[in-house]
Amino acid sequence: MNIENIDVSSYPNSEKIYVDGTLPGVRVAMRKIHQYPTVKIENGKRVEYPNEDITVYDTSGVYTDPAVTVDINKGLPRMRESWIEDRNDTEILPDITSLYGRERRDNPDLDPIRFPVAHRPRKAKDGHRVTQMHYARKGIVTPEMEYVAIRENLDNRERGIDTYITPEFVRDEIAAGRAIIAANINHPEAEPMIIGSKFSCKLNTNIGNSALSSGIEEEVAKAVWSCYWGGDTLMDLSTGDNIHETREWIIRNCPVPMGTVPIYQALEKVNGDVRRLTWEIYRDTLIEQCEQGVDYFTIHAGVLKEHATLVGARLTGCVSRGGSIMTQWCVLHDQESFLYTHFDEICEILNKYDVAVSLGDGMRPGSIHDANDRAQFLELEVLGRLTEIAWEHDVQVLIEGPGHVPMHKIAANMEKQRAVCHEAPFYTLGPLTTDIAPAYDHITSAIGAAIISSLGTSMICYVTPKEHLSLPDLNDVRDGVIAYKIAAHAADLCKGFPGAQVRDDALSKARYEFRWKDQFNLSLDPEKAKKFYLESRRNAPDADDRFCTMCGPNFCAMRISQNIADECKQ
Amino acid sequence: MNIENIDVSSYPNSEKIYVDGTLPGVRVAMRKIHQYPTVKIENGKRVEYPNEDITVYDTSGVYTDPAVTVDINKGLPRMRESWIEDRNDTEILPDITSLYGRERRDNPDLDPIRFPVAHRPRKAKDGHRVTQMHYARKGIVTPEMEYVAIRENLDNRERGIDTYITPEFVRDEIAAGRAIIAANINHPEAEPMIIGSKFSCKLNTNIGNSALSSGIEEEVAKAVWSCYWGGDTLMDLSTGDNIHETREWIIRNCPVPMGTVPIYQALEKVNGDVRRLTWEIYRDTLIEQCEQGVDYFTIHAGVLKEHATLVGARLTGCVSRGGSIMTQWCVLHDQESFLYTHFDEICEILNKYDVAVSLGDGMRPGSIHDANDRAQFLELEVLGRLTEIAWEHDVQVLIEGPGHVPMHKIAANMEKQRAVCHEAPFYTLGPLTTDIAPAYDHITSAIGAAIISSLGTSMICYVTPKEHLSLPDLNDVRDGVIAYKIAAHAADLCKGFPGAQVRDDALSKARYEFRWKDQFNLSLDPEKAKKFYLESRRNAPDADDRFCTMCGPNFCAMRISQNIADECKQ
Repeated sequence: MNIENIDVSSYPNSEKIYVDGTLPGVRVAMRKIHQYPTVKIENGKRVEYPNEDITVYDTSGVYTDPAVTVDINKGLPRMRESWIEDRNDTEILPDITSLYGRERRDNPDLDPIRFPVAHRPRKAKDGHRVTQMHYARKGIVTPEMEYVAIRENLDNRERGIDTYITPEFVRDEIAAGRAIIAANINHPEAEPMIIGSKFSCKLNTNIGNSALSSGIEEEVAKAVWSCYWGGDTLMDLSTGDNIHETREWIIRNCPVPMGTVPIYQALEKVNGDVRRLTWEIYRDTLIEQCEQGVDYFTIHAGVLKEHATLVGARLTGCVSRGGSIMTQWCVLHDQESFLYTHFDEICEILNKYDVAVSLGDGMRPGSIHDANDRAQFLELEVLGRLTEIAWEHDVQVLIEGPGHVPMHKIAANMEKQRAVCHEAPFYTLGPLTTDIAPAYDHITSAIGAAIISSLGTSMICYVTPKEHLSLPDLNDVRDGVIAYKIAAHAADLCKGFPGAQVRDDALSKARYEFRWKDQFNLSLDPEKAKKFYLESRRNAPDADDRFCTMCGPNFCAMRISQNIADECKQ
Repeated sequence: MNIENIDVSSYPNSEKIYVDGTLPGVRVAMRKIHQYPTVKIENGKRVEYPNEDITVYDTSGVYTDPAVTVDINKGLPRMRESWIEDRNDTEILPDITSLYGRERRDNPDLDPIRFPVAHRPRKAKDGHRVTQMHYARKGIVTPEMEYVAIRENLDNRERGIDTYITPEFVRDEIAAGRAIIAANINHPEAEPMIIGSKFSCKLNTNIGNSALSSGIEEEVAKAVWSCYWGGDTLMDLSTGDNIHETREWIIRNCPVPMGTVPIYQALEKVNGDVRRLTWEIYRDTLIEQCEQGVDYFTIHAGVLKEHATLVGARLTGCVSRGGSIMTQWCVLHDQESFLYTHFDEICEILNKYDVAVSLGDGMRPGSIHDANDRAQFLELEVLGRLTEIAWEHDVQVLIEGPGHVPMHKIAANMEKQRAVCHEAPFYTLGPLTTDIAPAYDHITSAIGAAIISSLGTSMICYVTPKEHLSLPDLNDVRDGVIAYKIAAHAADLCKGFPGAQVRDDALSKARYEFRWKDQFNLSLDPEKAKKFYLESRRNAPDADDRFCTMCGPNFCAMRISQNIADECKQ
């Protein structure tokens, strides 16, 4: 297998750098963007003033390291493996635990699509909990914690920017449940990252096939592509064929934490027949995925039997797949949800691998009409209670949020979440601020995402232009990621996150000085910015004109401004 | 000339309708979207439940009326002409007043590009003021006021939706300066529309050539295209060749109010040499454009000589073309701006044609760094004083706003504007909430536009993906308009504007019931929504599947929801 259609050369004049920590093996990847000098003519002489390098957060993994040749058939380097081993609280299992996992492994028909290198699963030794929350509560600063502290700070200290983020601060936020590092011991390939309201806002991308589309190769390409453009985490929401094998390929090649919604695969195992879903099948699925290396699970354990009757009163019912499955299960069996009744047991599985739980909002509103309704907020209260339970088991928690919400109802979501979920990080899908723009829902939702993250949401789940209509292709993934990078960064500026404005200022200075190449290179999508610029410069494609291409030479406000400054000096 | 590349058939199942007013000739265009029935199987029988028509605001003019054949060479029907004549306070002039206008008219070299039908300019009779504000203050409800009242309400009353908008309410808002109807007596082709915080949020699009690009035909096509997709007003910002003739073509074919920045053309008249700009040249330009039919002028009269020194302290100087020109003029001449010193005279020209003044923000910030700085807010205070002067002359006023502003500084703009500009309608460019995403600034700015309009901004000026990089083409215009329709509509929902949610609810109901065609037809861009949907349905392109194309048949949450509802009933 190879990924031909990913061209990872869209960041000109950038350099992959690594910043060493104090703990062994902590070597934090960042991207440094070099700039051209500012050129002035002084006393008839050309004088160059250097412009500083700008260091930016880098989610692309070793795919952008020219020193590393990635072979998709072997997977990424296992950076965290030695850290995990050094803790001496885990062991390599003699065999895969999951029955289903064994079946797949032993089925020779699957050989052609199987990831070539068998992953040997690791699990906590008996009596141990191996979550970052567990370590944090014991006062331990793990290499993962130091890694994310360095990663969040970029070069803030060198720049003299005050920052509150230290490894100890990271530890304390995790101990308090206000932040998480989703880092399964079976996904040592992932570079640690932190999700919490006092850190930079993160974005998740969804990929995955459905019965209607998409093979393994395409999904791996989307995963790499998502990381390349800036996706901080990745959810594989596959519901089609070969979910198990697809996931293995993605995890082994994924430099960011990866999440899933295990109920999807559990349902596939019973051929989509909700009636036949059982706790046992679900449990085996959890373990199967824990041992593959999934870093967080969306679990719709807050959907209760009593909520089912509220669905009918809505304009758009229940639009969460997991939520609708569990609601139907409760109705069909006239029983309480097994996710709820077995939640303690779930947590005891998760803390053996350090899989975080992302408490799904099965009752998220699917339309402006249904926003902030009783079904939604009743479930949120249940999620608050489940948070307490998860924390008792040292399991790290995210809380998922809506959905479709008009602007004036967004703040109430954040306030309610904060009030009932004890400051566990909020992770929202958008929200979409209107229903009337299918094909543009990356925009309807970027508006909501920017607002809710500025209020304290820690991670926003992207929406692509294809939302409601189809599954995203590579272009849609790129459009979705960039829209959400914008929302997340706008929120970071709004929150006054340390160092957030450095890149804006550098890009604006480059723009003002007509350093076009620097303007492109500092942008979120240098390739597209340059392409658009060159469309107006077909006859003179050198990107160094001293005027703006929108206004032409006589009408360039920035050039006139510089003349004014000169004239004022004289 | 013809416009071949505008296909005005992208709104399937829509009907152009007209709602009559009580005053003569008031016939308000709207678009009615028909829906398919909801189909249910009851007792084994197929039962159809009709779904109501949805009426939406329509800016496309007669271009979408199958009963009208538009000939671009003749211009649109002159709907308002009889209203203006009936007021008996204007007269057709014996000749064009502007010297420059006469020169252009008498130059035979221009015959090939001249609009074929000569417009005979109209002006107030001596001693008369003919602005909507003047009439409003006298207690008169004009046909324009009744038109916009009907237009804003759509079919709210028929639906039983409470609405405060009556012709008298419109009149009172205009009298108080809180809203404007930009309606030059020389642009009778335009359909009246209202800009004010108590009305639906409007969006402006910018078109116009520069020295680097674009001919007349292309600009007319952009104008029609902009109206077709939902642009409420249009600014022609041309700075290249044949500005006068381009403008004539646009105005005669433009069903929405059209604005300009007259200083651009004045500067062209002196070959871009700011030193040679004079009040006389500017004055002649104003009159030239008043008599062509421009509905509002951006005038940067708040840029004062004393502000020039503040430009140097900024990261990105002065990014307003008009602002930078006037600042440079003040510095070069060591004199106060002629726009400021002649502001009374300007107003006395404008009220003879009913051209509104849009007080330009010459000091709008061009970067996050410069947002809300002293230069910007000092100018805003001057704009407040100029508002008072304009109102003394019965001239309608808009106040222009930024620019680049991080989210946490947006509210201060609205508050300051409201405090110092006496509630004159605010009209902002974006604002862009970060600087780091050239090629995606329709998104960075849609976020800011949604926020500031939800706080009370009356009109938002679109930004296209080409902002900072190049001039927009037709695709960019469409992308920019849709992004801003989203922002404006999200703000209307947020404000609780009467009837705003009707379309959201209808579309969401269609979505829930798998009425795919209705979902497309009710959306802002039916063509693109359908295209995206069909991409996943290549093998079965009938758009009536009873499942969502993202999830496939087994995983469709909405289908499961409907099953739940059915099961709960049993």
